[in-house]
Amino acid sequence: MSRRSRPIIGILGGMGPDATVDLMRRVIVATPAADDCDHVHLLVDSNPDIPSRIAALIEGTGESPAPEIVKMAKRLEAAGAASLAIACNTAHFYAPDIRGAVSIPLLDMIELTAETIAQMALTHHRVGLLASTAVLNIGLYEKALSRSGITIISARRQSDLMDIIKAVKRGETGHIARHAFARIAAEMMEERVDLILIACTELSLLADSINPETPCLDAMDVLTREIVRQGLGGQLPNITEDKQISHG
Amino acid sequence: MSRRSRPIIGILGGMGPDATVDLMRRVIVATPAADDCDHVHLLVDSNPDIPSRIAALIEGTGESPAPEIVKMAKRLEAAGAASLAIACNTAHFYAPDIRGAVSIPLLDMIELTAETIAQMALTHHRVGLLASTAVLNIGLYEKALSRSGITIISARRQSDLMDIIKAVKRGETGHIARHAFARIAAEMMEERVDLILIACTELSLLADSINPETPCLDAMDVLTREIVRQGLGGQLPNITEDKQISHG
Repeated sequence: MSRRSRPIIGILGGMGPDATVDLMRRVIVATPAADDCDHVHLLVDSNPDIPSRIAALIEGTGESPAPEIVKMAKRLEAAGAASLAIACNTAHFYAPDIRGAVSIPLLDMIELTAETIAQMALTHHRVGLLASTAVLNIGLYEKALSRSGITIISARRQSDLMDIIKAVKRGETGHIARHAFARIAAEMMEERVDLILIACTELSLLADSINPETPCLDAMDVLTREIVRQGLGGQLPNITEDKQISHG
Repeated sequence: MSRRSRPIIGILGGMGPDATVDLMRRVIVATPAADDCDHVHLLVDSNPDIPSRIAALIEGTGESPAPEIVKMAKRLEAAGAASLAIACNTAHFYAPDIRGAVSIPLLDMIELTAETIAQMALTHHRVGLLASTAVLNIGLYEKALSRSGITIISARRQSDLMDIIKAVKRGETGHIARHAFARIAAEMMEERVDLILIACTELSLLADSINPETPCLDAMDVLTREIVRQGLGGQLPNITEDKQISHG
């Protein structure tokens, strides 16, 4: 084995810990590797001490998560990270704080996803967003996609979608949750959207319950691809579009 | 939410990355948590730049992994880790190097497992070790258990066990691997062992194929329990012995 150092990708995690582990698993699967030494170098901070994002952003109570998130970013930079990523959609609200505190780039899941969608040939310029109410309310994807003239459509039954997210957080990923999620996705397609964007880790776990003919993009897959690309030193792995978007 | 900082547990990982993710998943499951903030603070270095342990220890070729492992330990200590753990049995060969380089404690999977077994009421003082040939050859568990007068028994068909480990590394965790592993475990019980010790991450993935009446201990579960205990500030979670050892 020839010795070479790969750039360290720092992951701001713990929001929640399951999402962090899921991102790591996706990176492993997406990396063309025959042995341990072929993998991406991840330095992962799975931190339980970040104040609730929901309390701060939606309920307007509780202290700001920004200082602890900035502290994590600085810790990862000091430990040698060449770039950073956040294993949580909502926490991208604090991306400007991170950028202001470190000198290494942030692989921004929201921006990367918006760029991916901007490069697609769309008919209606409408994207169905399956995300938590927190992500909808802070308008992260709305802002990023509006720059490309794309309109965000949320689920008709957003409160039912939140119930599914909560069920998945309790570990309920069985038939009931899968069926309910598939129905919400099917309803979304009646809204003349070009594709469905999954922007919630809990919902990613149910993604394969959606009709395989439905055009679908998962923000975590977009971030995964960029982490693997950066982690292999800028060399893009041979992932076909089909692995990210199924067009039936 | 009251703000409190939990001690950071640094994980030396990437040997391989799957084992690292598996340990994190076990820690999440073993932690009594109702929300993100209830979890253990892990700082995980999933490092592909560690020279092959097999090449260095068994084949006697290739450079020593010790310097890179020591570098990881120092990096995690500098980033604030209060203690360290290694998500790999074989890499515990380098535990003395780590202890010599940092001033924080190492949660030693081999020592913790040996202590756990030493506290058991054994009849034959014989433990059946299901591990890779590398772990057998370097005698890690043999040394630790011999201090308690316990003899290690290896599998009759160790080369078949290695074939199973390699199959799991290729992702083959289906019926064939499970059946073969269950047979090797059954043969082990014919050797008058008090219990079977699983000391290989790949084999942990097949553990539930073993006859549930077989007394069985998984070293990763012992390490997981100590990580959770330390990670919650020394407070032992309410895990019953039954969750670690099944006596039928």
